[in-house]
Amino acid sequence: MPELRRDPVDGRWVIISTGPHKRRVDFHTNKYDEKGRGKGCPFCPGSESLTPGEILAFRDPGTAPDSPGWRVRVIPNKFPALMVEGELNREGVGYYDKMNGIGAHEIIIESPRHEDVHASLSLKQLEEVFTAYRERIIDLHRDERFKYVMVFKNYGEAAGAGMEHPHSQLIAIPILPKHIIEETNGAKEYYGYKERCIFCDIIQQELEQENRTIARNDEFLAICPWAPKFPFEIWILPRHHDSSYEDSSSEQFAQLAQVVSEVHKRLDAALDRPHYNAVIHTSPFEIQHNDYYHWHMEIMPRITRVAGFEYGTGFYINPVSPEEAAEFLRKAEV
Amino acid sequence: MPELRRDPVDGRWVIISTGPHKRRVDFHTNKYDEKGRGKGCPFCPGSESLTPGEILAFRDPGTAPDSPGWRVRVIPNKFPALMVEGELNREGVGYYDKMNGIGAHEIIIESPRHEDVHASLSLKQLEEVFTAYRERIIDLHRDERFKYVMVFKNYGEAAGAGMEHPHSQLIAIPILPKHIIEETNGAKEYYGYKERCIFCDIIQQELEQENRTIARNDEFLAICPWAPKFPFEIWILPRHHDSSYEDSSSEQFAQLAQVVSEVHKRLDAALDRPHYNAVIHTSPFEIQHNDYYHWHMEIMPRITRVAGFEYGTGFYINPVSPEEAAEFLRKAEV
Repeated sequence: MPELRRDPVDGRWVIISTGPHKRRVDFHTNKYDEKGRGKGCPFCPGSESLTPGEILAFRDPGTAPDSPGWRVRVIPNKFPALMVEGELNREGVGYYDKMNGIGAHEIIIESPRHEDVHASLSLKQLEEVFTAYRERIIDLHRDERFKYVMVFKNYGEAAGAGMEHPHSQLIAIPILPKHIIEETNGAKEYYGYKERCIFCDIIQQELEQENRTIARNDEFLAICPWAPKFPFEIWILPRHHDSSYEDSSSEQFAQLAQVVSEVHKRLDAALDRPHYNAVIHTSPFEIQHNDYYHWHMEIMPRITRVAGFEYGTGFYINPVSPEEAAEFLRKAEV
Repeated sequence: MPELRRDPVDGRWVIISTGPHKRRVDFHTNKYDEKGRGKGCPFCPGSESLTPGEILAFRDPGTAPDSPGWRVRVIPNKFPALMVEGELNREGVGYYDKMNGIGAHEIIIESPRHEDVHASLSLKQLEEVFTAYRERIIDLHRDERFKYVMVFKNYGEAAGAGMEHPHSQLIAIPILPKHIIEETNGAKEYYGYKERCIFCDIIQQELEQENRTIARNDEFLAICPWAPKFPFEIWILPRHHDSSYEDSSSEQFAQLAQVVSEVHKRLDAALDRPHYNAVIHTSPFEIQHNDYYHWHMEIMPRITRVAGFEYGTGFYINPVSPEEAAEFLRKAEV
């Protein structure tokens, strides 16, 4: 059974995800699985029986569950970091705290085509991926044990991906993520002072200054943020205030697909298809609708390594300014 | 000129370290420099002229500065993340904040022998390395612009090391590191409630439970902590309350060398010399002597990759429990 454990000094939680359910290759748990390019890949059409049964799929009319014909398919992770069955039990162990490792860990297979990447997906396909995220968040919100759903994507070995076939993941957790607490607290404090959403103010300023913008349309803006942790880090924000991802409409997802696609085409052209992590930051369930926090997507290319200074301080050293990065991405030929 | 920039939402600072002084290889700034194994390595004896002049060295009698004969040598980093000359200017840029990138960035060359690793250094040599850290921290404390000195070591490419020759680094910064603020706040809160140092309580409990201990002597204890971010993460703590590293005596460093050496021998035997980051967490200058914070060393082997979930949430997924890790390390043949 996995466990959630709390650091007694700084209050940070970790997931200790051990147990026989866990694939373990000499402790290198997220070793890249080259299996695939169509041969033996469990995410390819025709291999549906190699995965747990699907939770959700967008499929062609007349095709049966867990058979080919899907365009986007959501399945439980066969090697989950947290277990979905069980009760939340919090208990003390001397000075320490732990909780049962309850949570949901799902895989969103983004395309039937093994070779696809975000930049090669059609806008319609991307829109369906974003719709699948929404459907799963809404469904998991019904489970009262969960406080948050983190949707994320690891692309490429340097970003910790374990599989080649295009996919993203989500983890529903019974505690609020540290980074989300920090962001919502910061945003709330700003709102208390200004009665404005800080993200809305940032968007306004970035649209005026233009030196950190990469792409935009009526509904979304892509920028290199002012204080990026990583070179070429990108934030994609809805231009109009929206506290939670799952409140977005299909029309908004169509526009999101457009900006995400353009951003990935520019990244791939400028940096030769970099490995990256992407995450969605949205409001916790308990404050789904609020005036101060603004959902957004963060894309973090992994072209430098995080080292001792970063782990020691929590501060990142970034050798590329966001102004340089944005200019480089705007000039990329796509 | 490097800049310190503050994220307007969560208050986290980043170092934007650009400029002509910075070595840039297609943005892969910490690309591993294989140069060396004695040939062309600027840290080897005889190559002193390839580095900036030494700030401190422990040398054999009668040898001249910046010439061979040193056992430990401290030099300014030729490609510093921050610049030591200049004034601290904090200014607003619209909704954003920045500060001149003032700081000191130094290299502590730990041995004249290119092939050395921590486990191969003599106890006397390790003690001199720890003494060099102390001397530099005390000296940098005199500069009123600095609030903290982070001492860290990146060993191996996976840990972001840029050079092979055994070395550690330090960065003095004009702001308090986020992680140190979190730890000192947590420790202070606990002290407010219990009137005891939380680290002292942890040490007491770990000595009783024994299932997470790895090595100990009269002055130091090495454990796998309760809530480790990384598999085989190790903390080394002074057994008697000590808020700041730089207050340690030579006798204490002799004992620290013993425990550090044993820990590295066990890590190398158990995990085939893993790449790792090590950091020293000590009290900020402004609270150098206090009853609630307890300096310690953290060693983080880099055998798994940090991915989207971790960057999105701030929570780490760790596939190895500290109890398993400690047992594995205790059983390693050294």
